[in-house]
Amino acid sequence: MGEIPWIKRMSPKLTAPSLGNNTADVDRLVKGLKHALAGTDVRVNFSLVKRLSRDLRRYDYGVEAVLYRDGDRWQLIDIFGGKEAKALHGLALDLGSSTLVLRLMDLSSEITLGEISFNNPQIEIGTDILTRIHFAGREGGLAKLRTLVLDAINLNTEKLVKESGVSPKSIVGMSVAGNTTMTHLFLGLDPHWICREPYIPVVNRPDVITACELALNINPQAPVLVFPNVGSYFGGDLIAGILASKMTEQEDVSFLVDVGTNAEVVIGNHDWLMACAGAAGPALESGVADMGMMAAPGVIDSVVIDPETGEFKIGTIAARDGSSAIVGRGPIGICGSGLIDLVSELFLAGMIDLRGKFVPDRCGKRLVEMDGIRHLMVVPAYASGTGEPLTLSQIDIDGLVRSKAAMYTILTTISKTVNVSFDEIGRFFVAGTFGSYINPRSAINIGMIPDLPLDTYVSLGNTSLAGATMALLSLDAQKSLFHIRDQITYLELNVNQEFMNLFSAAKFLPHTDRSLFPSVKRLVD
Amino acid sequence: MGEIPWIKRMSPKLTAPSLGNNTADVDRLVKGLKHALAGTDVRVNFSLVKRLSRDLRRYDYGVEAVLYRDGDRWQLIDIFGGKEAKALHGLALDLGSSTLVLRLMDLSSEITLGEISFNNPQIEIGTDILTRIHFAGREGGLAKLRTLVLDAINLNTEKLVKESGVSPKSIVGMSVAGNTTMTHLFLGLDPHWICREPYIPVVNRPDVITACELALNINPQAPVLVFPNVGSYFGGDLIAGILASKMTEQEDVSFLVDVGTNAEVVIGNHDWLMACAGAAGPALESGVADMGMMAAPGVIDSVVIDPETGEFKIGTIAARDGSSAIVGRGPIGICGSGLIDLVSELFLAGMIDLRGKFVPDRCGKRLVEMDGIRHLMVVPAYASGTGEPLTLSQIDIDGLVRSKAAMYTILTTISKTVNVSFDEIGRFFVAGTFGSYINPRSAINIGMIPDLPLDTYVSLGNTSLAGATMALLSLDAQKSLFHIRDQITYLELNVNQEFMNLFSAAKFLPHTDRSLFPSVKRLVD
Repeated sequence: MGEIPWIKRMSPKLTAPSLGNNTADVDRLVKGLKHALAGTDVRVNFSLVKRLSRDLRRYDYGVEAVLYRDGDRWQLIDIFGGKEAKALHGLALDLGSSTLVLRLMDLSSEITLGEISFNNPQIEIGTDILTRIHFAGREGGLAKLRTLVLDAINLNTEKLVKESGVSPKSIVGMSVAGNTTMTHLFLGLDPHWICREPYIPVVNRPDVITACELALNINPQAPVLVFPNVGSYFGGDLIAGILASKMTEQEDVSFLVDVGTNAEVVIGNHDWLMACAGAAGPALESGVADMGMMAAPGVIDSVVIDPETGEFKIGTIAARDGSSAIVGRGPIGICGSGLIDLVSELFLAGMIDLRGKFVPDRCGKRLVEMDGIRHLMVVPAYASGTGEPLTLSQIDIDGLVRSKAAMYTILTTISKTVNVSFDEIGRFFVAGTFGSYINPRSAINIGMIPDLPLDTYVSLGNTSLAGATMALLSLDAQKSLFHIRDQITYLELNVNQEFMNLFSAAKFLPHTDRSLFPSVKRLVD
Repeated sequence: MGEIPWIKRMSPKLTAPSLGNNTADVDRLVKGLKHALAGTDVRVNFSLVKRLSRDLRRYDYGVEAVLYRDGDRWQLIDIFGGKEAKALHGLALDLGSSTLVLRLMDLSSEITLGEISFNNPQIEIGTDILTRIHFAGREGGLAKLRTLVLDAINLNTEKLVKESGVSPKSIVGMSVAGNTTMTHLFLGLDPHWICREPYIPVVNRPDVITACELALNINPQAPVLVFPNVGSYFGGDLIAGILASKMTEQEDVSFLVDVGTNAEVVIGNHDWLMACAGAAGPALESGVADMGMMAAPGVIDSVVIDPETGEFKIGTIAARDGSSAIVGRGPIGICGSGLIDLVSELFLAGMIDLRGKFVPDRCGKRLVEMDGIRHLMVVPAYASGTGEPLTLSQIDIDGLVRSKAAMYTILTTISKTVNVSFDEIGRFFVAGTFGSYINPRSAINIGMIPDLPLDTYVSLGNTSLAGATMALLSLDAQKSLFHIRDQITYLELNVNQEFMNLFSAAKFLPHTDRSLFPSVKRLVD
């Protein structure tokens, strides 16, 4: 990846002390390292000083040193016996509010040795960030939240190193990308002011912290790079996304969108970057829909309605290990991308109209009324994995329409602000797990994203993890990410009359101005 | 003192966060500081990050920041409420193997607010360094030695701050000068190899360590500068001495001598520095003499023998507080400087000969034989403070003669090595508590030091403490001390035939070559 690694291994040429060469042990090592590093300053943490003599002597002064770059100096992480050709490892962490993903890398070969994904145990306190922030304000609340996530990280690190057969001591660096609140909870910093005017974090750019300061069970002196944020609502996860997309290396203007509870949107190229975030509504992630769920095995992620028969062809997410555990069981819910597919198909089939309202004639028997609200039967009880029918209500559709309208309005607003028309967009990157399941055709059909050639859309998958991995491996990537952070202009969305007008126009499928969506017009016609 | 302080206080102009200016708290402070520091990098330790928000808000963003310089960057130590005009303090520590001295400084006015001197409690393990090094090798030994000295430092810091009415939190920096072994024991570093071939310390140049890492009860983020050493036998105390003497700022060549168990000798000017250390024998410090003691109230520090009456006029050290507690009580022992005076006077009075042997005819009744060895009665039992007679034996004199011969031989050897004759010496600095009591006239009379004009000799007192104080206050002084460390050429004393010949010649009073001591010749003749 990057040419200049953040973490460097070196075998300094050291001679054993003698009467004629009685430099102290620590200084002997530092001298050897400096010599090989063309005189760059080398620092040794005091806790290492305490055991260096013993280690140097144990290995008869034939050691391999591991260092990381900190500004204009190198900081020693550890030394290892030079004769054992040890592999050195690093961890990249996607610190999600729902799911965390740890990736174990071999730092020399830059090969991924293992990856583990696990739920954020803070979910037991609250699924949404706001609940957690409020909980953090209680007596002992912050400590509890921090302990929950820390223990889970340590536990899963242990699993990962066992599976990969490496030692925790060999993990000599870590990078962490998460949103601003998650980052604060991970660091044990009070998130109180993140959700209160004027919405400021404790820190934007944390300096590198050592693993022992954070109580992470890897090499105690391993540096931990925690991604910076631009503000309370623009976190390190999105900066990791921008880094992973490489949009700042291109002359063409790109969009990067990360859709979750918030729609986070970045537009820019190698010269400039503008970002904004707006509440897109939870419809797109786990959903306001009754049957809405996070993407997981057994969850509906795609729907096709046969134009001839009106039959629903339903695709579900396979179990990760390919096991048949849920084969034979029906779907258990629907995720955001499935919902987009479903509504798109309903629209194309004429089962919902321009306003997203059910058309009873076209829905036929599938339309039922429950508690006075119209529901469309998607999977009847006998065919579902839960034993209950999976249905889509008018309320669910209304929620999705508001979300997609918000997204399109945000995209329109930000591109107007920078005076770039959609035609000029070279790439439209979609980040996040959600993004990797989304079908751009369906999203265009409902008017959530602009009607651009389909190959403009690039799904990047887990860009938090990808960006964290890049930063773990490369100093150039770290420079880029801090450059990205400093370069971003954050557009505070002004929900004024103009915005509301744009929003109202976008609340139709695909839009009141159908000329904006010629490809949809062709499909519908 | 120095123009550029190591520790800086600043009042950055900070505005409270607002919707239009939502930089995070830590970054807001860093930005304000950087602005005032012309863009120099400012770092904030993670433990400070955790409480900065709360403190900034408590003081409504009107704070005073305290920072220290670390290479090319500034490191934050703490912030204080800006409206309380708080004084900031520093500690300088002379880490002696027998006695420790703590000095409390006001960092702005550079005034000494208090000073406290206390015994090194490691004396309970062993008075000499070697015993302590061996003890450190036992199970738990090193920890015990470290705890002893650390607890004493913390206890006396507490006393000092109470007496001076300052808070431990206001102590935002510390400097520590001690010999190599004491420094290792203070840091908890294993001194094992200091006394074993090839005699190397764990570390020569420790990086700055924070007070909390060392468990010192001052401001936790206060930087602690531990003086570097040149090797096992040339410690930070002597580097502090060179710094305090300012000999490296002069064109004239100076000698600096620190006499303890070892005679440590430095010669040089602003261009070069050479140092050596040799066993001078304990005679000069607390003494092989039966009545030998460390300098303390009630101890003989000067002796004059009336050339007419042969009467001994004896001076003792006054109690530090000027109290009369020991007035009326007689002397209780003799310190090194008293011993030099006594032997010098005995020699001038003809009571000992050129070889330092008693001349019975001249000693008369004062000469008694105890256990088959000749003793000179200095203070009879009825006049002594102990109730026992204070006597000087032939063995005591022989010991002193060997010590003074060693000193003179070392001075001769090192000056020959650098090809500087004694005439060319501009200043002869005598460091250490012992040095401040010594009478150069007496030391010349016995041939311990060269026969130079008396005003060449300058007693510097506690140069460890003086050097530590300079380093605490000034970055220039710190630069100087590291420059001194790097510049010193250490002369390994080669005890060969030539050295032994010089030594034998110096074992006479004042010397076999009496032309080397013309002023003594005049006195004796």
